[in-house]
Amino acid sequence: MRILVTGAAGFIGRMVVEALAARDDLVVDGQPGQIASIIATDIAAGPLADLSARHDRVCAIPGSLDDPDVLARIRENAPDVIVHLAAVVSGLAEQDFDLGMRVNVHSTIALIDACRAMSHPPVFLFSSSVAVFSCPGNDTISETTLPAPMSSYGTQKLICELLVRDASRKGFIKGRAIRFPTISVRPGKPNRAASSFASGIIREPLAGMRADLPVGHDLRLHLASPLKALDGILVAIGLSQDTIGVETTLTLPGTSVTVAGMIEALSRLAGPQCAALITPRPDPAIERIVASWPGQILSPRAESLGFSANANIEEIIQEYMDGSQQAGR
Amino acid sequence: MRILVTGAAGFIGRMVVEALAARDDLVVDGQPGQIASIIATDIAAGPLADLSARHDRVCAIPGSLDDPDVLARIRENAPDVIVHLAAVVSGLAEQDFDLGMRVNVHSTIALIDACRAMSHPPVFLFSSSVAVFSCPGNDTISETTLPAPMSSYGTQKLICELLVRDASRKGFIKGRAIRFPTISVRPGKPNRAASSFASGIIREPLAGMRADLPVGHDLRLHLASPLKALDGILVAIGLSQDTIGVETTLTLPGTSVTVAGMIEALSRLAGPQCAALITPRPDPAIERIVASWPGQILSPRAESLGFSANANIEEIIQEYMDGSQQAGR
Repeated sequence: MRILVTGAAGFIGRMVVEALAARDDLVVDGQPGQIASIIATDIAAGPLADLSARHDRVCAIPGSLDDPDVLARIRENAPDVIVHLAAVVSGLAEQDFDLGMRVNVHSTIALIDACRAMSHPPVFLFSSSVAVFSCPGNDTISETTLPAPMSSYGTQKLICELLVRDASRKGFIKGRAIRFPTISVRPGKPNRAASSFASGIIREPLAGMRADLPVGHDLRLHLASPLKALDGILVAIGLSQDTIGVETTLTLPGTSVTVAGMIEALSRLAGPQCAALITPRPDPAIERIVASWPGQILSPRAESLGFSANANIEEIIQEYMDGSQQAGR
Repeated sequence: MRILVTGAAGFIGRMVVEALAARDDLVVDGQPGQIASIIATDIAAGPLADLSARHDRVCAIPGSLDDPDVLARIRENAPDVIVHLAAVVSGLAEQDFDLGMRVNVHSTIALIDACRAMSHPPVFLFSSSVAVFSCPGNDTISETTLPAPMSSYGTQKLICELLVRDASRKGFIKGRAIRFPTISVRPGKPNRAASSFASGIIREPLAGMRADLPVGHDLRLHLASPLKALDGILVAIGLSQDTIGVETTLTLPGTSVTVAGMIEALSRLAGPQCAALITPRPDPAIERIVASWPGQILSPRAESLGFSANANIEEIIQEYMDGSQQAGR
């Protein structure tokens, strides 16, 4: 089988490509099969070239999904599985509305259109986000709660969930849209995303650096580790379409933890001197945004389909300390 | 003020243009104002020419919303109010997916984009549909029920609701998306829509013609008369954006009635010999579709904002008998 990964140069994209390159077989749509090739596409050509240089079975298609040549090459390759991760992140989609629409909505429409030209409908995994939700007071909601996005990013992700659902009903694709929790601990540097602190307050202290905490200790976050996100992608690919049925959107289970709980766990695992590097620096703008985030999302349907959350926040922090977000390299 | 009506040659579109042409003032976004001109656009040039010939203040822009020239003329006219009715109907959107996406989704995106070029955000009324909903067993649902469209038409309407909601949050437009109940009694001929019988079993017998009844007598329908739909459009235009807030989608109240109740009302108003022209002719395909339609939709929020349902099915039938669906001519 051939597997296409879009946004393959991103953090999750690279994890997926590395994990697929490290194995020979994969369950797809309920059936085990052999991985023949992994087609990696992204606008960032450098990381793609690196991936294809290191793995014989990885073939790179650098370029944008709004480039007809890139779409033509995807159609020619006729992938059996598409893992569609390419996206403009939350902050940027809010700042540049047109860019968000182009990358997050129109590219997904174009990719689904490309699938219609293929001889058989591919498994199409779309990466959505719990940013489709909002709720008053950092409350507990469920996977069947009415989405109410408070950002263009969340709106665009929700629109694509609906496109995937309808295209699956029409038989164009075997769709599954999975809503990722906030991913923590992400490697790298702090960014301007409101959720940046959810990784920063673990990552920076572990590197011996100070980390600002812009929110209160009582705020609850709904988290998944990078490896748990990867696990969710593989489980979603493996499910048969019959099992999923008409409702192709799945909300991944997450671990609900307070900021205080994160700090306590960090202190237990890395010592109080590490946790002491976290400096409260309230930011009303960020506090206002995060107050509308669900503190917990119950997802019994996703759990019954085989998705799972991290055991606890300690597991999430330990995974980062072990460097296991780079598993498969 | 200038008011743009798209899909102005359609049944509801003509009603809206006629009603606006018959009055001098209109409450828009909470403020009364004078109607200076009505810009009517549609791909059907003939009916548009008729409208503009009969009303001095009606100006016709024939053409498609995917024609850059049409969009340029709309931008030049910089309407204060947009009533966006242009759409491909349910059956056709299911049959021709690309046409449905182009007209129902991409044209709405293009129209919202055109608004961003204007000096002030116009009131933007989008006509959605209760086709965004489905439920098992013809059940009672509410305006806050999670939409689960079972057609490309319903999916496309839901996507546009989300686009209107986000564009309003961003300040591009003053959006309001209203979900119309099944409109009955529509004039004209039966069509291939699954809902065709909801008008046909009243309209045809009143014209002395037989009407097939493809569904059971116990099926409940959620109906609004054409004048009630027009009323909903005018109420929605009048609401101030502050009153509507971030949730710009409004589900119009409807009248819930069984098929048996419709036939009884017809018998009372037009005599049993009229109702006897309805011939049961079960159609399993239609029965399967309508069983997923909500039998009733509770909409307390819409009611609190000033929207209302018809008093009863008698009022709906009487309106058609009075020919009052052509009021304003």
